[in-house]
Amino acid sequence: MEPSHSTKQTSDTAILIDEPSRSTRGKSAAPVAIAAKTKGGSYQKGGWGRGIAIFDLILRVAALVAALAATTTMGTTDQTLPFFTQFFQFQASYDDLPAFSYFVIANAIASGYLVLSLPFSIVCIVRPHATGARLLLLIFDTMLVAFTTAAAAAAAAIVYLAHNGNQNTNWLAICQQFNDFCQKVSGAVVASFIAAVIFIVLVVLSAIALRRR
Amino acid sequence: MEPSHSTKQTSDTAILIDEPSRSTRGKSAAPVAIAAKTKGGSYQKGGWGRGIAIFDLILRVAALVAALAATTTMGTTDQTLPFFTQFFQFQASYDDLPAFSYFVIANAIASGYLVLSLPFSIVCIVRPHATGARLLLLIFDTMLVAFTTAAAAAAAAIVYLAHNGNQNTNWLAICQQFNDFCQKVSGAVVASFIAAVIFIVLVVLSAIALRRR
Repeated sequence: MEPSHSTKQTSDTAILIDEPSRSTRGKSAAPVAIAAKTKGGSYQKGGWGRGIAIFDLILRVAALVAALAATTTMGTTDQTLPFFTQFFQFQASYDDLPAFSYFVIANAIASGYLVLSLPFSIVCIVRPHATGARLLLLIFDTMLVAFTTAAAAAAAAIVYLAHNGNQNTNWLAICQQFNDFCQKVSGAVVASFIAAVIFIVLVVLSAIALRRR
Repeated sequence: MEPSHSTKQTSDTAILIDEPSRSTRGKSAAPVAIAAKTKGGSYQKGGWGRGIAIFDLILRVAALVAALAATTTMGTTDQTLPFFTQFFQFQASYDDLPAFSYFVIANAIASGYLVLSLPFSIVCIVRPHATGARLLLLIFDTMLVAFTTAAAAAAAAIVYLAHNGNQNTNWLAICQQFNDFCQKVSGAVVASFIAAVIFIVLVVLSAIALRRR
């Protein structure tokens, strides 16, 4: 029994020695990382921020795709009915309704902003501690949440009316005639809502990065 | 001339002595504030965060007033025309149009959220370094930016249609008959947009506080 007892004691001692050495290393690492940026400390902190920044860039590209899809779908959709009277042809396009025109403009502006914001997002990848660029992105992202949501909601209200009409106001549904047009417009509205949700996620990501730096 | 020269020299010396003592005090205060929270350092830092937190609370109350005004104006407005046929009376109220119903629900939810968020805002005044509460408020505020903007934009699209009508879709303007109803609804939409703008300012304020802590 003697040898086994001795090995147990050794392993206990080894753990006892290991524990405090690890804890003191952890304690000393924190101030050193702030003061002199040692390899271990700054790499771990930078990696966290860099992960968020790369995810930010990917989401920005996804939002750009969604906003561009919304703009082009709404902007290029028009439908001409196969019958016409002596005086005019029945045609529907986005500029018949002001809400759809605003939708195209707002999503085009959102696409332009997203392209311009890509370099700032890359700056945040290269320098995860650059809080100025991140705060700037957060402020503009918040404004574009409102902008794209407003466009999508206004268009959605009109599309709903076009689909269902309204008896109380005597507004008739036009989607029975312009079915193809209505379906494409609905798709554009969904794409714009996706872009708005991605903007919300971008704002939350930036806030987490600002807190964790 | 002798006494005046001596006094000038004295004052110069006094400044020279004063300057370095002030700068060293400033330099020593920064690390001490982090390590042990001396009175001067933590008071200044806490004061900055506390100022933002108090402004946050005031804005929250203002947004609550705007959201409540939007809800009650839209919810209580109805207009009955002074003439009627044998079968029905001409009446307009918010539940005639789905966009207005959503508007009332969304602004009621926003009012409820604002009341619930007041204690968290007060926590941020008492403890300016509590970043958890601030991050939580920022995330929910961002969602409510989208929520209230969507409600306001959808209602605005319908009100615009009610005011002007649309020739291309044969939707006639109803505000010539229901003038009083349309004006009150327009007021509610403006109040909701004000609430949305205040939410954007709240998000930006929280982000600045997270960065400056």
